[in-house]
Amino acid sequence: MKKVAVVMGSASDLPLAKDALKTLAAFGVPHVARVLSAHRTPDEAAAFAKGAEADEIGVIIAFAGKAAHLAGAMAANSVVPVIGVPVCGKDLGGLDALLSTVQMPKGVPVATVGIDGAANAALLAVRMLALSDEELNQKLKLYVQKLAEQSAEADEAMQKEMEQL
Amino acid sequence: MKKVAVVMGSASDLPLAKDALKTLAAFGVPHVARVLSAHRTPDEAAAFAKGAEADEIGVIIAFAGKAAHLAGAMAANSVVPVIGVPVCGKDLGGLDALLSTVQMPKGVPVATVGIDGAANAALLAVRMLALSDEELNQKLKLYVQKLAEQSAEADEAMQKEMEQL
Amino acid sequence: MKKVAVVMGSASDLPLAKDALKTLAAFGVPHVARVLSAHRTPDEAAAFAKGAEADEIGVIIAFAGKAAHLAGAMAANSVVPVIGVPVCGKDLGGLDALLSTVQMPKGVPVATVGIDGAANAALLAVRMLALSDEELNQKLKLYVQKLAEQSAEADEAMQKEMEQL
Amino acid sequence: MKKVAVVMGSASDLPLAKDALKTLAAFGVPHVARVLSAHRTPDEAAAFAKGAEADEIGVIIAFAGKAAHLAGAMAANSVVPVIGVPVCGKDLGGLDALLSTVQMPKGVPVATVGIDGAANAALLAVRMLALSDEELNQKLKLYVQKLAEQSAEADEAMQKEMEQL
Amino acid sequence: MKKVAVVMGSASDLPLAKDALKTLAAFGVPHVARVLSAHRTPDEAAAFAKGAEADEIGVIIAFAGKAAHLAGAMAANSVVPVIGVPVCGKDLGGLDALLSTVQMPKGVPVATVGIDGAANAALLAVRMLALSDEELNQKLKLYVQKLAEQSAEADEAMQKEMEQL
Amino acid sequence: MKKVAVVMGSASDLPLAKDALKTLAAFGVPHVARVLSAHRTPDEAAAFAKGAEADEIGVIIAFAGKAAHLAGAMAANSVVPVIGVPVCGKDLGGLDALLSTVQMPKGVPVATVGIDGAANAALLAVRMLALSDEELNQKLKLYVQKLAEQSAEADEAMQKEMEQL
Amino acid sequence: MKKVAVVMGSASDLPLAKDALKTLAAFGVPHVARVLSAHRTPDEAAAFAKGAEADEIGVIIAFAGKAAHLAGAMAANSVVPVIGVPVCGKDLGGLDALLSTVQMPKGVPVATVGIDGAANAALLAVRMLALSDEELNQKLKLYVQKLAEQSAEADEAMQKEMEQL
Amino acid sequence: MKKVAVVMGSASDLPLAKDALKTLAAFGVPHVARVLSAHRTPDEAAAFAKGAEADEIGVIIAFAGKAAHLAGAMAANSVVPVIGVPVCGKDLGGLDALLSTVQMPKGVPVATVGIDGAANAALLAVRMLALSDEELNQKLKLYVQKLAEQSAEADEAMQKEMEQL
Repeated sequence: MKKVAVVMGSASDLPLAKDALKTLAAFGVPHVARVLSAHRTPDEAAAFAKGAEADEIGVIIAFAGKAAHLAGAMAANSVVPVIGVPVCGKDLGGLDALLSTVQMPKGVPVATVGIDGAANAALLAVRMLALSDEELNQKLKLYVQKLAEQSAEADEAMQKEMEQL
Repeated sequence: MKKVAVVMGSASDLPLAKDALKTLAAFGVPHVARVLSAHRTPDEAAAFAKGAEADEIGVIIAFAGKAAHLAGAMAANSVVPVIGVPVCGKDLGGLDALLSTVQMPKGVPVATVGIDGAANAALLAVRMLALSDEELNQKLKLYVQKLAEQSAEADEAMQKEMEQL
Repeated sequence: MKKVAVVMGSASDLPLAKDALKTLAAFGVPHVARVLSAHRTPDEAAAFAKGAEADEIGVIIAFAGKAAHLAGAMAANSVVPVIGVPVCGKDLGGLDALLSTVQMPKGVPVATVGIDGAANAALLAVRMLALSDEELNQKLKLYVQKLAEQSAEADEAMQKEMEQL
Repeated sequence: MKKVAVVMGSASDLPLAKDALKTLAAFGVPHVARVLSAHRTPDEAAAFAKGAEADEIGVIIAFAGKAAHLAGAMAANSVVPVIGVPVCGKDLGGLDALLSTVQMPKGVPVATVGIDGAANAALLAVRMLALSDEELNQKLKLYVQKLAEQSAEADEAMQKEMEQL
Repeated sequence: MKKVAVVMGSASDLPLAKDALKTLAAFGVPHVARVLSAHRTPDEAAAFAKGAEADEIGVIIAFAGKAAHLAGAMAANSVVPVIGVPVCGKDLGGLDALLSTVQMPKGVPVATVGIDGAANAALLAVRMLALSDEELNQKLKLYVQKLAEQSAEADEAMQKEMEQL
Repeated sequence: MKKVAVVMGSASDLPLAKDALKTLAAFGVPHVARVLSAHRTPDEAAAFAKGAEADEIGVIIAFAGKAAHLAGAMAANSVVPVIGVPVCGKDLGGLDALLSTVQMPKGVPVATVGIDGAANAALLAVRMLALSDEELNQKLKLYVQKLAEQSAEADEAMQKEMEQL
Repeated sequence: MKKVAVVMGSASDLPLAKDALKTLAAFGVPHVARVLSAHRTPDEAAAFAKGAEADEIGVIIAFAGKAAHLAGAMAANSVVPVIGVPVCGKDLGGLDALLSTVQMPKGVPVATVGIDGAANAALLAVRMLALSDEELNQKLKLYVQKLAEQSAEADEAMQKEMEQL
Repeated sequence: MKKVAVVMGSASDLPLAKDALKTLAAFGVPHVARVLSAHRTPDEAAAFAKGAEADEIGVIIAFAGKAAHLAGAMAANSVVPVIGVPVCGKDLGGLDALLSTVQMPKGVPVATVGIDGAANAALLAVRMLALSDEELNQKLKLYVQKLAEQSAEADEAMQKEMEQL
């Protein structure tokens, strides 16, 4: 199976990114984690994206806040699908990162998930890889089923609680 | 190759969606177009998403404006990757559709592109399918190269124009 | 009297939803509480809405945050009035949930109350049911009168406090 | 059947309000239309709301733009359900009217529909009245069914168009 | 001298309003404080505004949050100048209250100050009353001079601190 | 009676400012109009404000768009009440001008009216001057009464129109 | 004198950029214009920035809309001052471009001017170059003086117009 | 070398401004720090800007929050480049300060950095001064290199951490 690369603009994004790394691990998807900055290490970031296919990387997930350019820089330098996770900041609630990630110009798309949506970024990568991996596809269906079951259990618990009132 | 389904909340989204359909056609990606509404025909929309894999659909692109729920409804009923295109409205500039599409809860991701980003949605679908289709991957690289060449030509033209001033 | 259904996208909405449940209880309005997700349990959510009338449910109150689709999903699958409560998130202050709930397309309205407006959602449901229930209507008038009295008492207290300065 | 009152802050709201009036007429719901301003004729507006029940009015729909206080003024002076329609302005896209209408304080709810959502306001009123009017309820179900059929026809037309390409 | 009335939508606005009351006291401006709600006690609020001139009130300062209608209700029922203070809420940072206060329709102005701008509201009232009160005008000039002096002292202190580095 | 000064950041604001000038003329309030820029002619702007009282100016109305500093510059250099009119731009709908005008720091208030609220700015100035001018106060009451009558006439016209349907 | 480079993400930015080019020409500042895209020609864009100093370029002005990364890419690859001009789009009024340009991470600043602020970008570049060019500094002072004179003339014209009323 | 002036609207901005002062010190750039308010000490602020060149000041950095006019006031009274730092407030997340700083009218530019971007403001000033100071330019290159090295070290550390999992 191809790998998923999780790249962060800064090491401070790691606590958030761990939700993505754990989810990938839970699905048995091979992955790498890198600190690469579109602004502080632009050459390394570009080189990484250019070499992604050769490195057996199938999907790149990029975490960045503020004027979040990292996902766009990945997508500009590789044709693998790039998923952008806008990171919430302390001032504008992540709106800056969201718009900087999603409003890409024609020709260079970034698949953007919600603000701080680390787990969803990983799940989106899994959906992409599962297109050509039946086993992974089955795992995804089990995951979705489990989500539904957890929700159903919470529903039952609530109904019981309501009855006792 | 798996097909890409382009679903619209309303037939009025077709002029915008055509940019996606043309791009898919240019890449030789088989596709279907459907009018399905999360709110007016919820059963049909859900049934379509549930049957997507059986219908050989690999990626779903959903266009919707305002309280844009269509992409989310597709993602809730299928494990194929779903791409959401927020459609610009006459009041809030598409901010409503963008937030309704991208801010999905944990467990059910939507790959969101920019407001009215029809061509980019198709290109993102192509990137996903190209993960397991080397020929499509080559086409994608040619496309990216052509984008760069067009940009370079525009650059040359501008430099000539500047010289003549 | 018909019942009011209080549905939540997640059990974590319960602390907020309790304001609605308590208000309904204070008015003697029969109610049920359910955890149903437009994205994690879409079939159960749709089935619940479709069966609402048969279950003697007159009004549905739906709590959801982020890309809040639950109220819309209820309204798409039932003709009973649906009240949407946008739940405040940690990033965008509930603006995402507000727009996702209120900006419904033509044909499928959601009666939206303010962000985290749990008590108001219940009071709105009571106003609807009181249209055909004179006793409930009287209780509503007493409630409104009590609100005014509390405000008047606070006014008197403040004026006394001011005099003593 | 109780009447629906359609009140407008200004006569200039009539073109928009006509969508509500026509929808009410199509459902055979008796209605009145009034120009009443929370700011220019506050006494008349308050008196109208206070007398609504005696005038056999079951639901009030209020249209207002900018610092839209009309729906709130209706809800402050009557216990019938009040539906607020935020009217889009030329500067802020209706965000001002939306927030002024929906963010009501605890105790006095307004059922807010989308910006310029005139038809939806009428449909929401119909849903409320249909709670105790089986005939109206049947009409509502026919309406919803027709919406679905129109969507299905648009879907068929699009699929035919796609086949011919 | 005419009085300044400080009205609050709720007693919970008092801590904030105290900045206005203290400022008025510091200038020796007679004042009253009232809890009056545009939504919970609309009759009392309107009556208060109607009687303001007879009560020797020259300026009304209104504090309200969320869908802040109180300043508008004062301005609709009196011709004395009304100052609106938008109160910051826990979700939208006071943007809702700001727009609900400032975007008044033609004919009924509200003099809006910044979010939570209690002291500035009082100072604005003082400026208005000082138009016809030379003694108050002198106090205002002393106040402005003192502000400048405090700023100059802070400047000197900073320059000293810088020199010692 | 004291004069009202209408100052504009640029001559291009005149079409909008005319609504203020006409309103002042209709009330018989003496006024002057000036083009003064906080950024292009800061000395002249400051000098004008400093001399306002000596020039028998009682109220200053300032029109400015974008990073609208003019009203603040007036208020920083004079103790007369300053009214700010945020001018709508072509990009952000006047939100920039609104925030730049209203969010003044403690000590220096600006009485802000709605975006492009030229007539309301004049009416607010009239309210301030009427505090010490009984004749003007009577005119203001007549104006408010006329507003109410016009609204009542529009209401009657609409009710007639409705009857004929 | 060092040159100013005006770079555009797309040739479609030229009409706007011409305001910058004309301003630079009026000040006699040597300049080049390039079409370079952070996303379509990332290598060329990076190479241009890396070579800027060697090319005798002292300031780079970058125009870009939407998820505007061009100015950031310039600043990441060169230590010359980079000025970013956020270009207004058809949906979000340029807010996306503004935030994507200005909210740069620590270490890599972009000097951002207003939305569509082409002339101001050139004037800011002139201010920078004038730091070490006395002749340019004098031109700048004349320009500022002329701005003030034009404003003063507009002021005189308006006062005359007012007198004639 | 010319000095950099760091001006603050209020002494309360010092903790934030210290990041700028420290950065300037680290680069050996002479600097002064002043408390000057566009609203409380407008004459002093204008006089300071007018005298900046004579005081050997090459760049002015201005910190201000809310309706942030300080940077604009500096730029209106001097032709040296002015850098504006919008300071985050407790309500609107600094959006008010950002728009008040960046949206300057044609003719008077402010080089705006991100919200609370103190260090970047200093680095931008250094970039400007380095245009004519080769030694400073070398320091800037070393700084940029160090940034890249720190990022590379963080990347290595992360890769090691990943290997050990």
